[in-house]
Amino acid sequence: MNTIQYLDITRPTLLIDPHRVHANIQRMIEKARRAGVRLRPHFKTHQSAQVGEWFRAYGVQAITVSSLDMAAYFATHGWGDILVAFPLNLRQIELVRRLSKSVRLGVLVECAAHVEALAAAVDHTVDVWIKIDSGSRRTGLAWDDPQQIVDLARKIRNYPVLHLRGLLTHAGETYHSQHPAEVVQRFQRSNQRMNEVRQLLEQNGINGLEVSVGDTPGCSLSNDFEGVDEIRPGNFVFYDAQMARLGACRETDIAAVVACPVVATHPERGEAVIYGGAIHFSKDGLQENGQTLYGWAVLLTEESWSPRVKQGALVRLAQEHGIVHLPADVLATLSVGDLIGVIPAHVCLTVSALGVYRTLQGEWIETLVRA
Amino acid sequence: MNTIQYLDITRPTLLIDPHRVHANIQRMIEKARRAGVRLRPHFKTHQSAQVGEWFRAYGVQAITVSSLDMAAYFATHGWGDILVAFPLNLRQIELVRRLSKSVRLGVLVECAAHVEALAAAVDHTVDVWIKIDSGSRRTGLAWDDPQQIVDLARKIRNYPVLHLRGLLTHAGETYHSQHPAEVVQRFQRSNQRMNEVRQLLEQNGINGLEVSVGDTPGCSLSNDFEGVDEIRPGNFVFYDAQMARLGACRETDIAAVVACPVVATHPERGEAVIYGGAIHFSKDGLQENGQTLYGWAVLLTEESWSPRVKQGALVRLAQEHGIVHLPADVLATLSVGDLIGVIPAHVCLTVSALGVYRTLQGEWIETLVRA
Repeated sequence: MNTIQYLDITRPTLLIDPHRVHANIQRMIEKARRAGVRLRPHFKTHQSAQVGEWFRAYGVQAITVSSLDMAAYFATHGWGDILVAFPLNLRQIELVRRLSKSVRLGVLVECAAHVEALAAAVDHTVDVWIKIDSGSRRTGLAWDDPQQIVDLARKIRNYPVLHLRGLLTHAGETYHSQHPAEVVQRFQRSNQRMNEVRQLLEQNGINGLEVSVGDTPGCSLSNDFEGVDEIRPGNFVFYDAQMARLGACRETDIAAVVACPVVATHPERGEAVIYGGAIHFSKDGLQENGQTLYGWAVLLTEESWSPRVKQGALVRLAQEHGIVHLPADVLATLSVGDLIGVIPAHVCLTVSALGVYRTLQGEWIETLVRA
Repeated sequence: MNTIQYLDITRPTLLIDPHRVHANIQRMIEKARRAGVRLRPHFKTHQSAQVGEWFRAYGVQAITVSSLDMAAYFATHGWGDILVAFPLNLRQIELVRRLSKSVRLGVLVECAAHVEALAAAVDHTVDVWIKIDSGSRRTGLAWDDPQQIVDLARKIRNYPVLHLRGLLTHAGETYHSQHPAEVVQRFQRSNQRMNEVRQLLEQNGINGLEVSVGDTPGCSLSNDFEGVDEIRPGNFVFYDAQMARLGACRETDIAAVVACPVVATHPERGEAVIYGGAIHFSKDGLQENGQTLYGWAVLLTEESWSPRVKQGALVRLAQEHGIVHLPADVLATLSVGDLIGVIPAHVCLTVSALGVYRTLQGEWIETLVRA
């Protein structure tokens, strides 16, 4: 039987553990079911039609994507209810028109120009979500400036081809929390604000709107989804070092590791040089003891990988080089030509950078990036 | 005539100005000629066979690459003298063997395992460079531990199929300098150390070695190449905000900009949201006034782009969203659906992330990443 030590890995290769992926999916599905909310998982993390099928096997039918190209990819692979959780890109309005013919398409709007361009372009009904900034200050209309939101909702309702479906937010501030309790507090504060906006719209005669919320930290750690109709976490499918560091998952929930060839060792400074750099991991990091780390070091085992090596971390990235800090006893066992595992700081960027990955059983998984 | 405002740009698109690229190439070629050193440009920045032809037109014949796959790509495109400036990846030794049959291949070694595996694999002569750590503490044998270097050189000379060509370094510490004078000082200190190593090898009867040095900041700013046989800068072909910030180029030498659709504007906080995130720019930044910036904002003009917008910068990146800070008067002229330009902090990572780019005249340029 093939084990990962014998796979023909020659360059930085993202490996995933399907058992952990399935467990992560099942856990989130169970949580959504208990809370009575729709799970509309964000597929921007795995970006793969094959992994999409794993979700479909659990009855998932509605998905989230982060670009119109990703919507087109998953539409091609049989998904019929797709929400593009990114502000409407007017330069791709023709693609919006085309997609709206074949799938139940959801888009975000946050200004009159979005609404007008959309209404002018489509012939088939489109689900329209008003993007609300509930505190992350990235995109959307400010939750505490309700007049703008009321005006935009009324404008949308002027166009019969636009179906005003609800209010959508992403509480991105949860990612910057210091501890799990803060994640939960920020997530629930965001949900509460969304419900205040919904009430205010109701007071203005705009009824029947759904509330859609995102973010893996909040959805992983909170058990209270009061006033929420739909959740859109994505990262939970694989998790990563940032999520474990934040307490949003256990280290044993992380389902993805990058196998990297060791190309040099430097015992005198406690470091190994790996083939695996910024073009493979991107350069997103996490803070640990005042240092930026780009990943955690693990040892690949016959069937899987070890727990994190104590103080083993990817501490520096050049274009194709990575510098891994390792304790002396671990370094002593490594030779050039060996593989070492790195749990990425931010797995979404790693998937996108590598464009393809494989399971621990050696099966290649293709993604949109390399489609 | 097409101008970039009319190009069918629908998503983040890297644009390059061929006039500036040619000027950057010519300037470096002239400098190398005056200094009497070989220019072996690093093709990891542009990664493109087409841009490679621009170099070839100036008589360049020897090139540098950062991976064996990149070596194979450029070998396919007619390059016959290729140095892989990355520690020997033993897991790709079969590719080394194959490449050595058709091109003059240069590889780096820094330990006995590299030398033995290489000698066992190849039938055709390979140029071997000993990688020296002249101060950057990334890879290589420490310049101030010469016994190791002497031992390795002797070992290489034991194998007739290995041609010990020289000593190679990359003074990566120049990138972290505070001002141009510090770049020059670090570059020259590195060159001096390399020559000390060479002298020491000569004292041990190992003669005739070349010294090869890298790094765009040092090669751009220094005029003194004493004791250097070969330079391997790469980034100079396009330059970027990091290089301009360091003083390694003028802002008007930067030949690359990413055109990004504006998807939302937030005048109340002085920001525009663009389609263009960490998966397009990676997450390498530069420090400016205590803040991390991922790029500089410019306005696209009919034929090209404007100087940097005062205090216009890409200040935050999510997976596909970018947040651009802009002064009120510039923001007031922007609508959703417009394009804005971003000069990347680190262009090598942007090229790799986008995988393809186009000239200001609209011609698509393919790279290894999308080959």
